Amino acid sequence: MTQATPFHPDVESALSALRATPPARVYFVACGGSLSIMYPAKFLLDQHAAIPSDLFNGAEFTARAPKGLGKDSLVILCSMTGTTKETLAAAEFARSRGARTVGLTTETGSPLGKACDHAIGFEAPYTTGVPIDAKNSNYARIYQLVMGLVALTEGTDYSQALMSSLAALQPAIDRAHTAFAPRFADFAPRFAKQEVIYTVASGASFGAAYSFAICVLMEMQWINSQAIHANEFFHGPFEVVDKDRAFILLKGCDSTRPLEDRADTFLHRFGAAENILVLDAASLDLTGIDPMFQGNLAPLIFFDTLWRFAYQVADLRQHEMLEGRRYMKKLSY
Amino acid sequence: MTQATPFHPDVESALSALRATPPARVYFVACGGSLSIMYPAKFLLDQHAAIPSDLFNGAEFTARAPKGLGKDSLVILCSMTGTTKETLAAAEFARSRGARTVGLTTETGSPLGKACDHAIGFEAPYTTGVPIDAKNSNYARIYQLVMGLVALTEGTDYSQALMSSLAALQPAIDRAHTAFAPRFADFAPRFAKQEVIYTVASGASFGAAYSFAICVLMEMQWINSQAIHANEFFHGPFEVVDKDRAFILLKGCDSTRPLEDRADTFLHRFGAAENILVLDAASLDLTGIDPMFQGNLAPLIFFDTLWRFAYQVADLRQHEMLEGRRYMKKLSY
Repeated sequence: MTQATPFHPDVESALSALRATPPARVYFVACGGSLSIMYPAKFLLDQHAAIPSDLFNGAEFTARAPKGLGKDSLVILCSMTGTTKETLAAAEFARSRGARTVGLTTETGSPLGKACDHAIGFEAPYTTGVPIDAKNSNYARIYQLVMGLVALTEGTDYSQALMSSLAALQPAIDRAHTAFAPRFADFAPRFAKQEVIYTVASGASFGAAYSFAICVLMEMQWINSQAIHANEFFHGPFEVVDKDRAFILLKGCDSTRPLEDRADTFLHRFGAAENILVLDAASLDLTGIDPMFQGNLAPLIFFDTLWRFAYQVADLRQHEMLEGRRYMKKLSY
Repeated sequence: MTQATPFHPDVESALSALRATPPARVYFVACGGSLSIMYPAKFLLDQHAAIPSDLFNGAEFTARAPKGLGKDSLVILCSMTGTTKETLAAAEFARSRGARTVGLTTETGSPLGKACDHAIGFEAPYTTGVPIDAKNSNYARIYQLVMGLVALTEGTDYSQALMSSLAALQPAIDRAHTAFAPRFADFAPRFAKQEVIYTVASGASFGAAYSFAICVLMEMQWINSQAIHANEFFHGPFEVVDKDRAFILLKGCDSTRPLEDRADTFLHRFGAAENILVLDAASLDLTGIDPMFQGNLAPLIFFDTLWRFAYQVADLRQHEMLEGRRYMKKLSY
């Protein structure tokens, strides 16, 4: 095993408390955009460790009250502001069952940070407007936590490869912005006129597709959507494909890429290329990202670049992104 | 503990082989409509047993290749015809890892039935056109298997309550058809004109919402859709709500009902009642169904009755249900 490279101090602190008695199972719990990062986190854990894990919306978790939740459980929660009430209630419920809790939030002093045994901070660009380095994002921190759990439970340490890959991520994102710019400029005018835009992905990329569908297209642009799993696509959803229907397909580079490839082939056979926006990880310059983590980091590149595409669509629709919402954070519900 | 009531012979046979060494974890694996029944199966297991479980689309399962899959795993698969290639590949992959496999299918002599250690037969009305008794449905059989696993791993036997509840299910469905008929007749002409219809549910009912969205609305009617989790609804999707947008809300009677209640309140506050079709388990006559299983059986009542609603919508749209598909089972892909 290579020499361990330290993770972020908040992550190290949480891991160090777990070391004496590693958890026997993990629950990933959050809501909406924060839930979307739990999908790739679980994917990473599933591929590297035998420890069982579950993934739940915060309110579902509390109301379902899984019988397996107990002292041997680790519950990993996330809320950008640390104030999401369902996630906060989930943390309190988990602790009432004796489980250990880790909360990821941009404000470690927030209610979620305080409700958990350990708080892990991260940075988010979309609330502050200040650009961040992706190595400080929610994905980056939860991946460190997951690979720390892998080391604790499996004895395999990939910290060096992960940390060097995360350091190379922002430059790769910046290059992707340039690489995708012509496609985005081409597609934005057509997609701005669509009433329905589906996203399609699998594996590590499904969470990015989910987040773009529900938090960007539906929430910020009132465009109808669904994140369709690339293989579930063939078991019903594909019947809506025609020359007019719009799709965004994320083709990652994890082990599920063949599923996305198959959806790509079908979409181009029966849809119109001008309405199928494919973001392909194979076309990206991923210099510095270790091959073992390229599939896990591609979704961040997709999501970050798509965010810029969303702003172009928003401009054309004259529908503001964050300010254009009518319910969220505008009233009580 | 009350005297155990025998399950269906196929279920008893599978359980009997598992008894000597009960599994340490469960994977629920299928595609599309068959995957949709895995959601309520996992919900039932999560609430009654501590054994960890996972739920995957068949192709995702094989491509992800979870490290935890091994000799101590039980993989439960389902394919109506027993020929779904991704599910078949998943069964073969599971066996190559040493896991035990149970396949649910209408044809126990089908490729899936043969590929698994144990086959469990069930009946389906939609392929044959012959009405069935719901106690012989896929839900009924997988619930027996799940409660058998609960008995094996927790020592709690609820077979009598489950079997008597299943015997009372078809009469409850028949009464629900009558009870919902006026609402369906009222809503069908409006919903037949909609290009987008969302389904909303949580807990035990989420699978029924998922199946109706992808297998009925999208696949058979080319109506755009998404099954929105009732709490995820508040973290993005609810921004598409307006007076014209159509929703089908399933209000079950499991422990997550408050999530569906909250969505109901929001939908009626900002949407139009004439475009919100609520199916409420509280309005149903569930005589004979044990209170402990009412929440688990309500989704079958929802799905079965909604199927009839779909045919009314299809008639008005002049778009046939099964025969109206353009890709599925019409060409190779």
